[in-house]
Amino acid sequence: VKRFCLVGAGRIGQIHARNIAAHEGAQLVGVADVNAAAAAQLARSVGSRVIDLQEAMRDESLDAVLIASSTDTHADLIAAAARAGKAILCEKPLDLDAGRAAATLEAVQRAGVLLALGFNRRYDPSFNRLQARVAAGEAGRVETVTIISRDPAPPPAEYVARSGGLFRDMMIHDFDMARWLLGEEPITVSASGACLVDPAIGKAGDIDTAVVVMQTASGRLCHIANSRRCAYGYDQRIEVFGSAGMVRADNRYATSVERAGSGGFEHEPALTFFLERYADAYRLELAAFIDVLEGRPGMVVSGLDGLRALQLADAAQRSLEQQRPVAPGPERS
Amino acid sequence: VKRFCLVGAGRIGQIHARNIAAHEGAQLVGVADVNAAAAAQLARSVGSRVIDLQEAMRDESLDAVLIASSTDTHADLIAAAARAGKAILCEKPLDLDAGRAAATLEAVQRAGVLLALGFNRRYDPSFNRLQARVAAGEAGRVETVTIISRDPAPPPAEYVARSGGLFRDMMIHDFDMARWLLGEEPITVSASGACLVDPAIGKAGDIDTAVVVMQTASGRLCHIANSRRCAYGYDQRIEVFGSAGMVRADNRYATSVERAGSGGFEHEPALTFFLERYADAYRLELAAFIDVLEGRPGMVVSGLDGLRALQLADAAQRSLEQQRPVAPGPERS
Amino acid sequence: VKRFCLVGAGRIGQIHARNIAAHEGAQLVGVADVNAAAAAQLARSVGSRVIDLQEAMRDESLDAVLIASSTDTHADLIAAAARAGKAILCEKPLDLDAGRAAATLEAVQRAGVLLALGFNRRYDPSFNRLQARVAAGEAGRVETVTIISRDPAPPPAEYVARSGGLFRDMMIHDFDMARWLLGEEPITVSASGACLVDPAIGKAGDIDTAVVVMQTASGRLCHIANSRRCAYGYDQRIEVFGSAGMVRADNRYATSVERAGSGGFEHEPALTFFLERYADAYRLELAAFIDVLEGRPGMVVSGLDGLRALQLADAAQRSLEQQRPVAPGPERS
Amino acid sequence: VKRFCLVGAGRIGQIHARNIAAHEGAQLVGVADVNAAAAAQLARSVGSRVIDLQEAMRDESLDAVLIASSTDTHADLIAAAARAGKAILCEKPLDLDAGRAAATLEAVQRAGVLLALGFNRRYDPSFNRLQARVAAGEAGRVETVTIISRDPAPPPAEYVARSGGLFRDMMIHDFDMARWLLGEEPITVSASGACLVDPAIGKAGDIDTAVVVMQTASGRLCHIANSRRCAYGYDQRIEVFGSAGMVRADNRYATSVERAGSGGFEHEPALTFFLERYADAYRLELAAFIDVLEGRPGMVVSGLDGLRALQLADAAQRSLEQQRPVAPGPERS
Repeated sequence: VKRFCLVGAGRIGQIHARNIAAHEGAQLVGVADVNAAAAAQLARSVGSRVIDLQEAMRDESLDAVLIASSTDTHADLIAAAARAGKAILCEKPLDLDAGRAAATLEAVQRAGVLLALGFNRRYDPSFNRLQARVAAGEAGRVETVTIISRDPAPPPAEYVARSGGLFRDMMIHDFDMARWLLGEEPITVSASGACLVDPAIGKAGDIDTAVVVMQTASGRLCHIANSRRCAYGYDQRIEVFGSAGMVRADNRYATSVERAGSGGFEHEPALTFFLERYADAYRLELAAFIDVLEGRPGMVVSGLDGLRALQLADAAQRSLEQQRPVAPGPERS
Repeated sequence: VKRFCLVGAGRIGQIHARNIAAHEGAQLVGVADVNAAAAAQLARSVGSRVIDLQEAMRDESLDAVLIASSTDTHADLIAAAARAGKAILCEKPLDLDAGRAAATLEAVQRAGVLLALGFNRRYDPSFNRLQARVAAGEAGRVETVTIISRDPAPPPAEYVARSGGLFRDMMIHDFDMARWLLGEEPITVSASGACLVDPAIGKAGDIDTAVVVMQTASGRLCHIANSRRCAYGYDQRIEVFGSAGMVRADNRYATSVERAGSGGFEHEPALTFFLERYADAYRLELAAFIDVLEGRPGMVVSGLDGLRALQLADAAQRSLEQQRPVAPGPERS
Repeated sequence: VKRFCLVGAGRIGQIHARNIAAHEGAQLVGVADVNAAAAAQLARSVGSRVIDLQEAMRDESLDAVLIASSTDTHADLIAAAARAGKAILCEKPLDLDAGRAAATLEAVQRAGVLLALGFNRRYDPSFNRLQARVAAGEAGRVETVTIISRDPAPPPAEYVARSGGLFRDMMIHDFDMARWLLGEEPITVSASGACLVDPAIGKAGDIDTAVVVMQTASGRLCHIANSRRCAYGYDQRIEVFGSAGMVRADNRYATSVERAGSGGFEHEPALTFFLERYADAYRLELAAFIDVLEGRPGMVVSGLDGLRALQLADAAQRSLEQQRPVAPGPERS
Repeated sequence: VKRFCLVGAGRIGQIHARNIAAHEGAQLVGVADVNAAAAAQLARSVGSRVIDLQEAMRDESLDAVLIASSTDTHADLIAAAARAGKAILCEKPLDLDAGRAAATLEAVQRAGVLLALGFNRRYDPSFNRLQARVAAGEAGRVETVTIISRDPAPPPAEYVARSGGLFRDMMIHDFDMARWLLGEEPITVSASGACLVDPAIGKAGDIDTAVVVMQTASGRLCHIANSRRCAYGYDQRIEVFGSAGMVRADNRYATSVERAGSGGFEHEPALTFFLERYADAYRLELAAFIDVLEGRPGMVVSGLDGLRALQLADAAQRSLEQQRPVAPGPERS
């Protein structure tokens, strides 16, 4: 049984806490949060206790740290956990600054610990199957990847202001999907965007509607459309088109109920948001992390995957600002 | 080029007139109808002329008679056309009386002319493909056939009164589909029904909602659900289930447009009624009849098929009245 | 927190054990099974202990007994639990004999305890939503209910032999759905069936393919098609047709992945079997039972519902044997 | 009745010839083609005759010229027909050179004749309904238009060589759809492309796979994905996303038949190619042209629409070559 410490008792921390508690091979030793009351409440609800982070790092019996605190704390927490020799499962992103993210990865590498990044979509049963079938050649040679990704409702302006922007905060998941499905690294990124949904987002210096096109060295294309608002639910769809056809994953629905009336056939909206759509994904992500910790086969998203996605987001931001295609990478940031 | 005379200038006669006019291998020599004005108007619109039926039968240059007049005229017209040596394409049913229908078939047989019955659904591209794939074994050995068949709106009570009843007027199409898809003749028919849609139909002595179950000698089952009214259009679906899976044909739609809004995903209603859903079927039915006339391969529905469907309808009527399963067939009528 | 004892450590007992263990308002005090090793293994895996049934019944601190043992034990266990004043959640069916089931219900009533029957489909999110929308009038006045229910593969012949037959063992779930959705009690039952799938089932005196039609006093119709084998997965679909349209629940799939190739568009098979399709349903069934125990609003399936479904199954069996429609009810059994 | 002369007896000319012949308000007076045999054969098959183009232009009784000859003849034929005072329905594109196209439009304007351009997709029932519903506000304020457009198989290299390239030959249809659906003119065009399908296309100096992103002055985005080859048929889909939801048009299929087997659910491929998918569109395009000629309400695609689409194609070509977003328009060509 692997002993976990959870850092962060917010919305996503709560998901992880319950998944750790429910996993037969894991034990939630303690919960830490700058908000002591939140930590206490979460700890109580899953039969764990509040833990002091310093103490946790010194606790030799602790195997792993799950980091679900705010983004600006990720780099320091990863570094501390790595120094303490703990395995790390960290929510995305590593950091909003690619340079700092790279430095953090070096620290992890020096420490020789396992770092897994929480790109939950790779564990979504539909996207996971999609990738497996594409990897098995069912689309033939991949030529064009189409990603539609829309949130149900825009976040508060104050969240947007410290989010790092749509590319680093929201489209970063799609950049990871793109890399995973294209089978090659994108070498150019071309971004277009606008503030069409919520003027407050524009005032905060960000966009809420975007299309990004990326191309790999062999010419493969990926286009991603994002919106911060979607009337019909959480719109999460991917199509991979290739020489032998297409493999795609459609939205998921809470039920299969459909009504037919004089207006036609109506199916309910898509699952509301990521907590519903990716509930299974969070559970399977933790299970894969534990599998790898236990030496069993399992797929974890590496820190380098996290860095590359961040570099694509940075490139998209530069492309948007400079109105030209740019190459992703550390040399230009 | 085959020279046709059309009897009946009503709704279905008009479809046939236009299809004959548009077919390269056919010529519409004349239109006959007891309503002279209707005959004249239809003849004018397709560049043909009004014809006297007696004269038409004597016209040696005429190859075929297409009968689309009222049901009570079918038997006499078939007999007259058969005596005159004309090929016959007759709208369903042969007659409302199975005995008279059988006698008519004998007359046709004595005359040695081609008689094709207008069971249009066999030519619907979806149902036609369905049957072809079932016949090719794609469902494996057929075990259960499910037919859903609902009209958009009930006919006027005066139509119902002289229609022969739901089984002979409406479900007769489904009986033909059942025979075609089961691959065996039904030996028992068990009918249930009620008047739930329109009390005027009940006053006219008929039902408007029915479920019929039929079974073949080897045990294969078919269940058919009918309604005289359907809020979401013309509901025409068939599923054939067997040892290797299922082959089914869903409804057809005028467009592929779908809207997603806060209420969910909405697809337009099914095609309104048979004139829309079976427009292709009527055209292909005529083409097949001409193919056979010309000696080319083609599938026509025989008079015997028409008689058998009528016998199943009669059996359903008896089953409903006697509240027990009955065997179809002439000996019990 | 409600304290449970579980009787039965088989496939379904295991599901219930995990759901009790995971529910915040429940505690699994002990597991009983005639197979002591099975009881011990299940108890260990969920952190509970093996319990002696007699002792459990005497344990005043125990609130509820969940009965998931073999069918022939249900009636005695219900009676014993009722005498001991325990709330009861019992897997379907109450018993294979309607008379004995009725006597058991009387015992429960005398004891004044809560008895809930495990008709899991009522808690399936899709069927539950279907019923709610029908009850809210979205189909208008209900006229015809169509139920397709097919198992992926036939059970072993020895299971069939003591199962009570397809109607009591398999279609009983559909009888419950029919009663729930029709909004009226069926007054006639007409059954057709055959052994088309597995000759061993026929040798065991049962059928594996069936269609049943039922009608209510006001004329509403329900037709149910069952098969013990289905090539494309666990086929579980319901359509409710009425004056205002139709509400239906389609199959559920593990993922939303679809492939398009030269052969067309392919979607994966339906969820394999009831353990997958109804995993949520079992969880929600337990939650509803606990809600009612705690005095919160919640829907439980009553013992009378179980008896009525059994009477419909008995009627179907008689109808099949006598080849005529029969009325369900105790007076004729 | 409007009297037509058809120029061009090739694949598309044949469609138009049959549609003119079948339209009650039109008469096909003659067919002209540089290939006299082709003209004669087509004329014979639709009951028309071969006509000399010069003679046709002088024939005062002729109302309209339908131009379906090779692209390089369009400008001269339009100019000649305009001088002769004939109404013109011309296949797309006006010309491969935007300057020459503009000059042609001026000649048409001076002559004061009706010029309609054959952007057939506007008349496709699904895309037509899509646009009507978007125009009616069903998507709310339009934010992002997604167009997927893939041909089933690449054209011969010799065709590619004189086609004007993928943007002017193939994506030009999508540019027209984009303008029609965005509700605003694109002001920037950003193109990415590669030769991934057929090396012969690359040798001919063209690409076969492309993604183009366009943006309007208010920030609305459109992304278009093209491929010259598609394993599953003719892939023609459009989604319009906006503040109130999404309206989309999916592919169309020859039948509604689906098979379910152990591999899952399989639906047949999409309609093979434009002759099948857009058969209705060609017919409705002609009907709209005749409606406008007769003074009835009707929608025709103007010469200016043709020029604007060509300018977007030119801009895409420049963007691809210069690897930067460019503005469409005459000043930069």
